[in-house]
Amino acid sequence: MSLTNSTPCCSENDQHHNQNVVVQPLLTDLYQITMAYSYWLSGKQNDVAGFDLYFRKNPFQGEFTIFAGLEECVKYLKKFHFSDSDIEYLRTVLPKHTHPGFFDYLKEMNVNSVTMWAIDEGTVVFPKVPLIMVEGPLPIVQLLETCFLNLVNYASLVATNAVRFRLAAGPDMTLFEFGLRRAQGPDGGMSASRYCYMGGFDGTSNVLAGKLYDIPVQGTHAHAFVNSFINFESLKYRQLKKKDSDEMVDFLELCLKWQDTLSNEFGFLKDQVSEGELAAFCSYAISFPDAFLALIDTYDVVKSGLPNFCAVALALHEIGYIPKGVRLDSGDLAYLSHTSRKMFQVVAEKFNIPMFAKLTIVASNDINEDTIHSLNQQTHQINCYGIGTHLVTCQKQPALGCVFKLVEINGIPRIKLSEEPEKISIPGKKCAYRLFGADDIALVDVLMRDNENPPKAEERVFCRHPFQETKRAYVMPTRVEPLYKVYWKNGKVQQNLPTLREMREKTISSLCHIRQDHKRALQPSPYKVAVSAKLYTFMHNLWLDNAPVGELS
Amino acid sequence: MSLTNSTPCCSENDQHHNQNVVVQPLLTDLYQITMAYSYWLSGKQNDVAGFDLYFRKNPFQGEFTIFAGLEECVKYLKKFHFSDSDIEYLRTVLPKHTHPGFFDYLKEMNVNSVTMWAIDEGTVVFPKVPLIMVEGPLPIVQLLETCFLNLVNYASLVATNAVRFRLAAGPDMTLFEFGLRRAQGPDGGMSASRYCYMGGFDGTSNVLAGKLYDIPVQGTHAHAFVNSFINFESLKYRQLKKKDSDEMVDFLELCLKWQDTLSNEFGFLKDQVSEGELAAFCSYAISFPDAFLALIDTYDVVKSGLPNFCAVALALHEIGYIPKGVRLDSGDLAYLSHTSRKMFQVVAEKFNIPMFAKLTIVASNDINEDTIHSLNQQTHQINCYGIGTHLVTCQKQPALGCVFKLVEINGIPRIKLSEEPEKISIPGKKCAYRLFGADDIALVDVLMRDNENPPKAEERVFCRHPFQETKRAYVMPTRVEPLYKVYWKNGKVQQNLPTLREMREKTISSLCHIRQDHKRALQPSPYKVAVSAKLYTFMHNLWLDNAPVGELS
Repeated sequence: MSLTNSTPCCSENDQHHNQNVVVQPLLTDLYQITMAYSYWLSGKQNDVAGFDLYFRKNPFQGEFTIFAGLEECVKYLKKFHFSDSDIEYLRTVLPKHTHPGFFDYLKEMNVNSVTMWAIDEGTVVFPKVPLIMVEGPLPIVQLLETCFLNLVNYASLVATNAVRFRLAAGPDMTLFEFGLRRAQGPDGGMSASRYCYMGGFDGTSNVLAGKLYDIPVQGTHAHAFVNSFINFESLKYRQLKKKDSDEMVDFLELCLKWQDTLSNEFGFLKDQVSEGELAAFCSYAISFPDAFLALIDTYDVVKSGLPNFCAVALALHEIGYIPKGVRLDSGDLAYLSHTSRKMFQVVAEKFNIPMFAKLTIVASNDINEDTIHSLNQQTHQINCYGIGTHLVTCQKQPALGCVFKLVEINGIPRIKLSEEPEKISIPGKKCAYRLFGADDIALVDVLMRDNENPPKAEERVFCRHPFQETKRAYVMPTRVEPLYKVYWKNGKVQQNLPTLREMREKTISSLCHIRQDHKRALQPSPYKVAVSAKLYTFMHNLWLDNAPVGELS
Repeated sequence: MSLTNSTPCCSENDQHHNQNVVVQPLLTDLYQITMAYSYWLSGKQNDVAGFDLYFRKNPFQGEFTIFAGLEECVKYLKKFHFSDSDIEYLRTVLPKHTHPGFFDYLKEMNVNSVTMWAIDEGTVVFPKVPLIMVEGPLPIVQLLETCFLNLVNYASLVATNAVRFRLAAGPDMTLFEFGLRRAQGPDGGMSASRYCYMGGFDGTSNVLAGKLYDIPVQGTHAHAFVNSFINFESLKYRQLKKKDSDEMVDFLELCLKWQDTLSNEFGFLKDQVSEGELAAFCSYAISFPDAFLALIDTYDVVKSGLPNFCAVALALHEIGYIPKGVRLDSGDLAYLSHTSRKMFQVVAEKFNIPMFAKLTIVASNDINEDTIHSLNQQTHQINCYGIGTHLVTCQKQPALGCVFKLVEINGIPRIKLSEEPEKISIPGKKCAYRLFGADDIALVDVLMRDNENPPKAEERVFCRHPFQETKRAYVMPTRVEPLYKVYWKNGKVQQNLPTLREMREKTISSLCHIRQDHKRALQPSPYKVAVSAKLYTFMHNLWLDNAPVGELS
């Protein structure tokens, strides 16, 4: 088993994150192997190549992206090694005349001579600015492509999606990720939970993600729970201890007393209330008297769910517990949340229980970013969203198009041409800086050649649009932040990797420095990514040298 | 580590499929655990519950779905066990007053008393007909929900998507899945490769999927490969052995000779041809002389890629090798495929090499189902598609909405009501049969109560629409196929699980029995799913008993 690939020095924490044993060198496209063979056979195995990993367009018609997945890339490097069984398999895949020396080469292959620079995970990032830059022997760096893209693409996409949900819902809304059952398999679910938390969610329903990633977990009960209680006979255990006392009460009896009271006060019809639902709520309250949150739409929210919830919540309150609230999973969420809140307020006033007016209302029915904007417009009384399908599948755009492009070989810059300027790669080894202006708000990211002097605070920087020659501007930054750090060199991780919580804080703080108009959902304005004058000239000369000259005919 | 959870009796093959160690009882929504506690505390832990796993709507605006993921569910059952560290974690999540007996209950929990019936994996399936039916102790069966849904939803979705691509492309097209870099993480990529193959693809670029699932793998080279060759200096090794001989030739020289010939014959300009590209093609041909397939759009397909390819292919041919063809990864695929084919035909005729006219043309640029239909309309000369993003992310609909509904408890049928009839569950324990008519084409799936006599061939069966009372029909089947088999009982797998290749054959043969109009892309007609008269009456009586009576006011 490939677990033997993991480095023995892994900490307990590492092992948790590395549960997915399929992250290994063979998790790649076959063409990486065939290219490696061709490089090796052509005597190019020690060519020094530089590759940039970047994307060309922000997802979701937005103007920002959150970089995620770096830690997974670092861990992939840490255990990069072709096992004997990998080599045996490759012998069966490659042609039989393949030079046997190539398999020895693969067997000995390691990433000690690879250097990786990257932007910190959790940083807000923009098109064209490399997220990761890798330098090292051509066949080895090329082999990293597929896995790096796989690890970065979905992680960044779903983290960005989570941030968009957070921005739509506002800072006071509680957000839980409920997407495990709709994710692309088990690991898709684990990644979704991890990166949604990083993107500002408050937690997940995914228990394993809670255990392995130390994310808060949340959950109450399903419709099936309610449906499994047919009547009061289904409730075999009915006792509940008073809070802070040893006295037991017949809790069902107490609930029925409150049901009578509510029926008399508010005139709801007891024959319209589901007995099974009340039994289920009783059972749940007895199990979780300090955390009673009930799903109230199994039968009819207004005629059954709300009266039953209030009866049980008032019973709990009578014996010293504080109920939590309700969850709505169908119907008109704006209307039902207002109806529920109104009922809670009336009960609060009638029985002089102020906390009742502030009970939590959770909504969780097929919510997407647009639903949240629409609910905001309609006004609602929801305190918490549980979000699944649209969040984890990134329905609005299910893939981020990161690419991994060769930018330099043996010190010679390489450019990938295209008829669409946005698809042209920016050649050579580079640095990048984020320039901040007044109030520490980011103004522009500027890419420079790696031998240029970095920009300085309070000194004018000349910034050019990478492709449009007339678009130029002087920028006077109040602060300059270099975007890259060395993350891997000489076979070792070069930075302390942050915890998931630290990455979450990084995401939140990084977003604080980005202007609101780049972050808004409707027609956001693009953030500027510029190149230095030197890089502009360097790149355009190379472009001219390489672009074919047309024929007029 | 949770690997200790896997049963020691796993075969080598099992271990391969079970690489993903996150498939374990904790991979679930927290509410399954909180419900389990409440069931346990309410004395319902031995209630016998029946749950159905089904979907309500076919994906992709289609009228069929392929059932996949069953084997993963079976394997999940095989290793279902809460580890000590799981229990320790749950102690920290559940309230501190949680009864300690519950943790002992979880510790001892197993699925020996669970029975699972299912349709064979790879079968064409339709809305409302359960894919899986589970019976057993309420808390245990409830706990299976999230993982079952996770394992079935994406697997079935992507298998169905693959079938749709196959139907669009036709049986003669070669189809390769190239989606690893865009999948939802590593495991998403592995699942995509597995289930696309099952859905009728010919293979994948994903090497690990090739190794673990025995799927044919395919790959050649990338743009970066071409770009890494600057000129002929980059090509350090230029020798190639003649086929079936020990004589070495200077292969670059031979290619340059053919370049001259082609330039003279067809008048292309040698200064418009990329030298680096020719060097790259030479290198690749030297490495894979029997499998030379070149990516020809790095610079300019017509001015550089095609002439370079032809020069190298003709050189290979001269010394006894048979070149394979080209790959197009950008531009107008219909036009470029025609241009390429035309060139191959002209070369074939000019030099009297008939095989040259039949060279393979692979296309691989952001292809989706609609692109294939559009290319079919335009006519094209493509022989093979490499498909990534749209296939694996299922862009058209990134989630299948399988649900897991309680249908019976302690022998009492349960119905989940909704104002939308299609959301109403079909209660009680059931059987299902597929009735076939002339030419062995499926006519209808009929659900029956489990105590009914099964339909018989050549005997009239009365079929009713589950919700619309006037829609009824007599069906005279020529053949009747029971849809369910027991897959899990008494703690053991009850069927020989088919290999992936067998499931792939099952998918293909199952589709053969489905009428064309259900499978077409444009306005397909719905396949009929019916209930027996007994089930209709049973279900509607229960519906009436449970639905609230409105108030006219």
